[in-house]
Amino acid sequence: MRVLGLDPGSRLLGYGVLENDRSGWRRLASGAIRLRADDPIPERLAAAFASVREIIQLHRPEHVAVEECFVAHSPRSALVLGQVRGVLLLAAQLERATLYEFAPRAVKLAAVGNGAASKEQVQAMIPRLLADCHTGLGPDEADALAIAWCCANQLRSVRLPSLRSGSGSR
Amino acid sequence: MRVLGLDPGSRLLGYGVLENDRSGWRRLASGAIRLRADDPIPERLAAAFASVREIIQLHRPEHVAVEECFVAHSPRSALVLGQVRGVLLLAAQLERATLYEFAPRAVKLAAVGNGAASKEQVQAMIPRLLADCHTGLGPDEADALAIAWCCANQLRSVRLPSLRSGSGSR
Repeated sequence: MRVLGLDPGSRLLGYGVLENDRSGWRRLASGAIRLRADDPIPERLAAAFASVREIIQLHRPEHVAVEECFVAHSPRSALVLGQVRGVLLLAAQLERATLYEFAPRAVKLAAVGNGAASKEQVQAMIPRLLADCHTGLGPDEADALAIAWCCANQLRSVRLPSLRSGSGSR
Repeated sequence: MRVLGLDPGSRLLGYGVLENDRSGWRRLASGAIRLRADDPIPERLAAAFASVREIIQLHRPEHVAVEECFVAHSPRSALVLGQVRGVLLLAAQLERATLYEFAPRAVKLAAVGNGAASKEQVQAMIPRLLADCHTGLGPDEADALAIAWCCANQLRSVRLPSLRSGSGSR
């Protein structure tokens, strides 16, 4: 089974793919895609869409997880983030992956054991949880792996309602 | 020259295509696509993307116009609307149309002569402005035609900065 975690931002897009084998979960691929800040929004959306679709086509995850957006900033930044998120959900949907979303608190709880953990704690913990994972992960890459890890854990333990089956983000 | 106006919502998606000939602008096509409220967000996004892409491929507008989102509601609804908007911008970008956005006030001003006009006034006025346009337009369809009309007017009179060339919504 493979799980892709995505951490969308308007400028950096973290991704992490996990795969399980008999001994547990290992990191298959991860990184952060830089969306050029100088590019107009439509071009950034097209770049994000193409990159995520390529990642899905390459690694074929059955499950794709994103964070529930916490919209702490302005409605304006919620709109921009929503636009990026929309094309990622679309890419996953077109590739027939099952989509899930998790609260940031649940992601940190799964990775660090503390729902209020810092980004640095997530970055430090993820390489200890996953096989084939180096240290010195960037924050967006670590977040994406943590989202995938959270999804992987819940998939293992419960039958999880997906976005497709109608939980959460209507 | 052809201009497509889009009025994205999370449940109804208005569209209107205008074409100009020697005598002025005429309505070529318009309507509202219903996104099934029962469907999860990823399926609604895929349906919106497919519909808009089909409209663009069918009518081949060189210019696509959307309203600047007014985010009067919650950050949550800004996020949902942003997701729908993201896939529409993506569809236009992938079909190589030039994208523009207009403030709701500018759209109403262009259609009715009053930036604070009601939806009903827009619905009543659009059929008087466009050849081949019936009365009794739905509000989303009328809004989309008004957005296209606003864009068409400005394209005629000035060289308009597009989203692609970097105005507005970074």
